[in-house]
Amino acid sequence: MAERTTKRFKLTIAYDGTMYHGWQVQAKHRTVQQAVEHAIQEIVKHPVRVQGSGRTDQGVHARGQVAHVDVVSHMGSKSLLNALNARLPTDIRILKAVRKKGFFHARKSAISKEYRYFVWNGELALPDKRLYMAHIHQPLDLAVLRDAAKRFVGRYDFASFVANPSREVFSTVRTVTDFTVTRKGREFCFRVRGEGFLYKQVRSMVGFLLRVGVGGEPPEAITELLDTHLPRTERVPSATPNGLFLWRVWYKGKKQD
Amino acid sequence: MAERTTKRFKLTIAYDGTMYHGWQVQAKHRTVQQAVEHAIQEIVKHPVRVQGSGRTDQGVHARGQVAHVDVVSHMGSKSLLNALNARLPTDIRILKAVRKKGFFHARKSAISKEYRYFVWNGELALPDKRLYMAHIHQPLDLAVLRDAAKRFVGRYDFASFVANPSREVFSTVRTVTDFTVTRKGREFCFRVRGEGFLYKQVRSMVGFLLRVGVGGEPPEAITELLDTHLPRTERVPSATPNGLFLWRVWYKGKKQD
Repeated sequence: MAERTTKRFKLTIAYDGTMYHGWQVQAKHRTVQQAVEHAIQEIVKHPVRVQGSGRTDQGVHARGQVAHVDVVSHMGSKSLLNALNARLPTDIRILKAVRKKGFFHARKSAISKEYRYFVWNGELALPDKRLYMAHIHQPLDLAVLRDAAKRFVGRYDFASFVANPSREVFSTVRTVTDFTVTRKGREFCFRVRGEGFLYKQVRSMVGFLLRVGVGGEPPEAITELLDTHLPRTERVPSATPNGLFLWRVWYKGKKQD
Repeated sequence: MAERTTKRFKLTIAYDGTMYHGWQVQAKHRTVQQAVEHAIQEIVKHPVRVQGSGRTDQGVHARGQVAHVDVVSHMGSKSLLNALNARLPTDIRILKAVRKKGFFHARKSAISKEYRYFVWNGELALPDKRLYMAHIHQPLDLAVLRDAAKRFVGRYDFASFVANPSREVFSTVRTVTDFTVTRKGREFCFRVRGEGFLYKQVRSMVGFLLRVGVGGEPPEAITELLDTHLPRTERVPSATPNGLFLWRVWYKGKKQD
């Protein structure tokens, strides 16, 4: 018989954030973390805390959020995955469950994160795109967007691109390692990867890029804002949450599981 | 000042069918036709009937449903379009509004229709795909699907592929002019065009194709069922409504508006 002992599992989670008040447990609102904790508790019959790689805001989606959880159970990772998906609502899916025997912490062990932001660039927001893409009706210039996005790559003080700098205790300096923009017909995809992001940093960067892409700001304004690192103003809007996906979280080690 | 007279408008409509009991007005349920009629009535201040090209079932979507409506108004098509989109919920969008001066009837003038059916072929249904794609976890064989789909093209008695033949007063003979299958990664797209379709015919054809695609039936079974034209049995399942889109309706005339 399998051992009944404390085990740590790494969970890779996809969710549709439309109906949730973000990832993080809140007293009065439905959140993704809460839904996953409840499902695990029903299975293992003891209280658990699910530790995510970081928060996502209300309405933001995930294709590859990562979390860890400690459970006392004889279950293997495959049984846990199946039992969880059987209990969770269909807008949350556990894509992978892997037992971690060495040190693993979903937030502390993460070395980088990738977000993707999707935009529908057309006169009207199509009904079947509205929950998973932002909508911009003025034409976006792909070449300008690409030039502009590159300007975010590097180690900068992102003070002008954080929603509430007082929440960041130590520093607003972060490193963005990649920022690309691709287009398929009317769909634009922004991919940004970095060691870690400040509160609403991705939505602020994309919000400003969209202004640049419709000709409302020159691409050089990004370099200027990164150099001055003044607090964020109305000049930098947050892109809407519906277009944003936490796409992937990277950890140390050759093999990603 | 613009004339205040009875005008017929052709409307091209996209909708997310998730929250509706189909197109057709029903006494106790929320339908798309009803939502559009209510919005027009608020604008023109008289009762209207919106005539669609045909029904769509509960949970089925549209990218290009077409309807006509007669209104007494001084409004032009652009003003009507904007006023309608301002009033309608975001899961229904009027893509085009065109005034028709000659004879035009959304159902009677239609010469053909195209439906598209989307399938996510992977182990799990991704949360952000679940409302607009059916989910098949067994691997689908694209070459087999293509061979099988072609067998539906032609003029046949589709009795084995209609949900309730008694609803079809005259005949279950219909013409399918095109049926293609394409694939992008894990997403399969079935495109079918024909002069007109029987009740649940598209979902029955796709339902059977999916059985063929996973090896549960040989492609030859389609030809056999079309030749015998026996009533539909459990051998022919309906594909789920979430993957189906009424994509386009064609009318006579060189220029489509």
